[in-house]
Amino acid sequence: MSSLPLSDIKITDSFWGRWQLVLIDVTLPTQYDQLVETGRIANFERAAGKKEGTFEGLWFNDSDAYKYAEACAYALAIRKDPKVQQCFDSVVEAIQGAQQPDGYLNTFFQLKHPNLKWRNLNMMHELYCGGHLIEAGVAAFECLGDRRLLDVSIRFVEHVMSVFGPGKRRGYCGHEEIELALVRLARATNEPKYSEFARWMVEERGHSPSPFEAELADPEASALWPGSGSLLTKDGKYDGQYAQDHAPIRQHTEIVGHAVRAMYLYIAAAELGDNRNDNPLEEALVRIWNNLTGRRMYVTGGIGPSSSNEGFTADYDLPNLTAYAETCASCGLVFWGHKMLEMTGDGDYVDVMERALYNGALSGISLSGDHYFYANPLESRGSHKRTPWFTCACCPPNIARLIGSIGRYSVGSSKDSFYVHMPVGCEAAATLNGVKVDFKIESDYPWSGKYKLHVSPKSPVQFKLLLRIPAWSGEMEIDFPAAEDPADYESGYAVFDRTWATGDTLTVDLGMEPKWVEADPRVRDNVGRVALTNGPLVYTLEAPDLGFVPQLFSVDVEAPIELKKEKVLEGVNVLSVEGLAIVDEPADELYVPSGANNSKEAVGKFIPYYAWCNRGSTDMQVWVRQI
Amino acid sequence: MSSLPLSDIKITDSFWGRWQLVLIDVTLPTQYDQLVETGRIANFERAAGKKEGTFEGLWFNDSDAYKYAEACAYALAIRKDPKVQQCFDSVVEAIQGAQQPDGYLNTFFQLKHPNLKWRNLNMMHELYCGGHLIEAGVAAFECLGDRRLLDVSIRFVEHVMSVFGPGKRRGYCGHEEIELALVRLARATNEPKYSEFARWMVEERGHSPSPFEAELADPEASALWPGSGSLLTKDGKYDGQYAQDHAPIRQHTEIVGHAVRAMYLYIAAAELGDNRNDNPLEEALVRIWNNLTGRRMYVTGGIGPSSSNEGFTADYDLPNLTAYAETCASCGLVFWGHKMLEMTGDGDYVDVMERALYNGALSGISLSGDHYFYANPLESRGSHKRTPWFTCACCPPNIARLIGSIGRYSVGSSKDSFYVHMPVGCEAAATLNGVKVDFKIESDYPWSGKYKLHVSPKSPVQFKLLLRIPAWSGEMEIDFPAAEDPADYESGYAVFDRTWATGDTLTVDLGMEPKWVEADPRVRDNVGRVALTNGPLVYTLEAPDLGFVPQLFSVDVEAPIELKKEKVLEGVNVLSVEGLAIVDEPADELYVPSGANNSKEAVGKFIPYYAWCNRGSTDMQVWVRQI
Repeated sequence: MSSLPLSDIKITDSFWGRWQLVLIDVTLPTQYDQLVETGRIANFERAAGKKEGTFEGLWFNDSDAYKYAEACAYALAIRKDPKVQQCFDSVVEAIQGAQQPDGYLNTFFQLKHPNLKWRNLNMMHELYCGGHLIEAGVAAFECLGDRRLLDVSIRFVEHVMSVFGPGKRRGYCGHEEIELALVRLARATNEPKYSEFARWMVEERGHSPSPFEAELADPEASALWPGSGSLLTKDGKYDGQYAQDHAPIRQHTEIVGHAVRAMYLYIAAAELGDNRNDNPLEEALVRIWNNLTGRRMYVTGGIGPSSSNEGFTADYDLPNLTAYAETCASCGLVFWGHKMLEMTGDGDYVDVMERALYNGALSGISLSGDHYFYANPLESRGSHKRTPWFTCACCPPNIARLIGSIGRYSVGSSKDSFYVHMPVGCEAAATLNGVKVDFKIESDYPWSGKYKLHVSPKSPVQFKLLLRIPAWSGEMEIDFPAAEDPADYESGYAVFDRTWATGDTLTVDLGMEPKWVEADPRVRDNVGRVALTNGPLVYTLEAPDLGFVPQLFSVDVEAPIELKKEKVLEGVNVLSVEGLAIVDEPADELYVPSGANNSKEAVGKFIPYYAWCNRGSTDMQVWVRQI
Repeated sequence: MSSLPLSDIKITDSFWGRWQLVLIDVTLPTQYDQLVETGRIANFERAAGKKEGTFEGLWFNDSDAYKYAEACAYALAIRKDPKVQQCFDSVVEAIQGAQQPDGYLNTFFQLKHPNLKWRNLNMMHELYCGGHLIEAGVAAFECLGDRRLLDVSIRFVEHVMSVFGPGKRRGYCGHEEIELALVRLARATNEPKYSEFARWMVEERGHSPSPFEAELADPEASALWPGSGSLLTKDGKYDGQYAQDHAPIRQHTEIVGHAVRAMYLYIAAAELGDNRNDNPLEEALVRIWNNLTGRRMYVTGGIGPSSSNEGFTADYDLPNLTAYAETCASCGLVFWGHKMLEMTGDGDYVDVMERALYNGALSGISLSGDHYFYANPLESRGSHKRTPWFTCACCPPNIARLIGSIGRYSVGSSKDSFYVHMPVGCEAAATLNGVKVDFKIESDYPWSGKYKLHVSPKSPVQFKLLLRIPAWSGEMEIDFPAAEDPADYESGYAVFDRTWATGDTLTVDLGMEPKWVEADPRVRDNVGRVALTNGPLVYTLEAPDLGFVPQLFSVDVEAPIELKKEKVLEGVNVLSVEGLAIVDEPADELYVPSGANNSKEAVGKFIPYYAWCNRGSTDMQVWVRQI
């Protein structure tokens, strides 16, 4: 099973449809301005000799331009927008001009340290940047038939493969990314050598001695970024967990280190496992996935609680206020969940994928499409705010490319099967058992669990239609009078295996209703607290909807929850429920006899988590005290 | 009003009596070993030319030896212990030998940077170390009549005053300490010029431009410790809050920056205000004190929540798990509270002083007297532990000198008044209206609020006896049949103004009983939670006393609290109360429907906070959820 080509799916609903409009009209034009203003484009022009001056910004800033180009490719597949096309062309031309004749491309090293290339792989991100270049090249080629960045990518990879590889120098990037990109390049070009090279990098990682140890001992290499030592060592010894370089991948048991790095490594591994039915690798991936989702993931699909390593700490350590839960990490979890789904066909992965997508990832961008979160906390005391850009701006183009490619995650197909993972409203086409079949989903997801699916083959054809049964589903009902037999069930999907004809229409009700969840009590921060969910969405309390600060509210989980579609926040379901709130003015003393702070009856109005902090910096809380 | 000379008060009760025994028998001998093993003594010997090698350790390590010597002086006033005397003499001789002929003394600069003396006052602690030298010199002189360190101190101060002062170079220390020491030196030597010098330093501080700005711009000076820049600046501009150098002291409104520095500055200011009836200075101090104790102090008297600046953040920001609440800062709060009490005569200051003393400060030392906390959190998930010493070892000798001088804080006198601030069991003598009067307090404080006070003047004499009425007092009862009139009340004290004769005995019951307190709800971390107190003690739940993890307990604040004296933890009151605890094995999923984790009836056994973590690293929680 795999995604449909993005050209074969068109998002039509009001939810992702609106996000894709905002992407094209606001997000991409404003991000382009940021790329220009912060010198990210100029760096390429300087490396090309077209502009004076030296490198500006952080050493991995090239990657922002690459991810941006990838997002543009998806956007242009949605709509041929002249402004986006212009931005895209401008970035592509700048990138093309900067590549060295030998294929090398990294403007930081070209401009500042031409003699220190490939000397510090653990932190200097040359291969990481290259990975994003490749992803952009593949996206533009597949979505637009535009080969320009693909050709730059191939030249770059050929150069890399002349330096590194079996029988040559042993090396891989401290920040994984190129591995997954190489698999995609192999697929796009039908050149298995690229995925074999990726496999070599993935498998070499974590074997002692690490190539990073020699780099840390090399004063000139280390001086490029002196922080690596403290991140990669522990008690004076090389540790490697930060970069998942602590053990060979097949021996990994827990998710560790930098969260985005971990995601990108395991995406590549899942692609590789999938390609070869490699059971030990698959088992390792499932083991790590279970550790992540069973012990180290926020209810929002945010991952990596700690800012100090931008990553993981210990089982059940999930503080809310200080949660790092980087936007990129949740994007990565969407990507990895999708690859695990493709590898296993198991709908359980969609539960996590959509949890991360609709909450921890989507919260990373403002409703207006031009302000961002880097960290996505589950509580705020008013000090968090969205900003138009970051010095380290990995997140904005990452969420942009996710929104642009949302069709990749909603449905899928194989030779003889069509999958509805998430009933995003869309029109899609797939060739099933040799016959082109059009699908149309009418839905109001995620606001409602009800949808209609129209199936229209060019001619009657047998294939399997698989409709995911979400874990949150109360009771899924499928109304399909034309079916001779009721659905079968496999791996989290309701399955209709039959011959389909034009006019076949299924009416599905996923049984979406508001639910209180509580966390494993080993998550000490959430003991005595509940979170409100409705389908894939996690809800939260935010001060503007209340007459009090959310932290002062406690909820009656037995009370009825009123659901109301409202126009606020670009249209959301608001969930209201009764509880108590401390509303008195506090006494003038810090510590008072118990009972001094009175609670009164109050209504908690919950909004979807992703929509918080769109009305200025506010107090917010996902995990609410129970009465 | 001031303290009695320590030679005039002898602690006799089982609480502080035991701590003083442990101080002499365990704490001071083991700290001496640490001073030797870590090169802190050797640094002096090297500076004296008696030993080879260069400076070892952190640049302010001299101060540990000084504070240690001060603690020894107090201990030797309690008991002439030969082992402690030997340690003390060894330290004193090492110090004496290291002083330069011109009076300069700082082994870090003498050994490593003889040409950079007085170049980086903001962070290099030369004057800070000198302050602790002076305090040791004054303590040894006053308690033991030993002039050796006093003479070293005077030579040092004269040298400092030849460099800095009105008409000379403007300068003061980034880490306040020498100011308060100079006031004490002035008092001990009857030389007002030293306190005038202190006053100059206190008043010069915070006027723009700061002398630290020039130091930060001096590359050679800054290179001594490159971290200063980020601590003292904000958004690229000099800020100074970290070192209370943001505004002249009379304009301070909030407590800011490094907590220990702040305490030491305001102690000096209170001493100076007290000496001159300086109302604007007193008003500033009361304002800052009210901000600290009304908005920025843990219930334990811990202060300075943040590790990043070892200090203060914002009003009501008091996280429990990550609380820094340095032992030294709570010691400092005891010292400052005591000075505010002396300045104002207001018993309210004792409420805070004893809160810090019996909780946040005392928790800094193990019951065995040889392991320490630097940070004193109000919650632990098992990762905190006490250690025998620290690289930065300011806390161990600080708590040692506090324990050694506890008599300073329990009672006080003026020409015609005798004060009982805290009824610590003791024998004390004071001269009141010209007649020597012996006092004896029999008590089991802090385990009981009942005490007997015997008053025995050499001959009948009129004076005022003031007995503090604690804020936590339920109903204070005084049984004193000999008194013609009942007590008056003033500034938090019950006052008997009469002629006293031998045999006068008062029986007092402070009305101590267990009480639940809650925090101002603006302390978001404590909403829905209560803490248990009994008199000056704050109680806590610790795993070894429970069949469950404390975080899983919620308490019924209406249930009766059973108090039982137990032999555990060197003898404490244990408070038991009913509640609920989540005791089921958790499900295998991280997020489950609400109601999945069942609670059962359970008993919460609370122990005094100061006694936690004496049975290994454990789970602990002060602020307990209410049912």
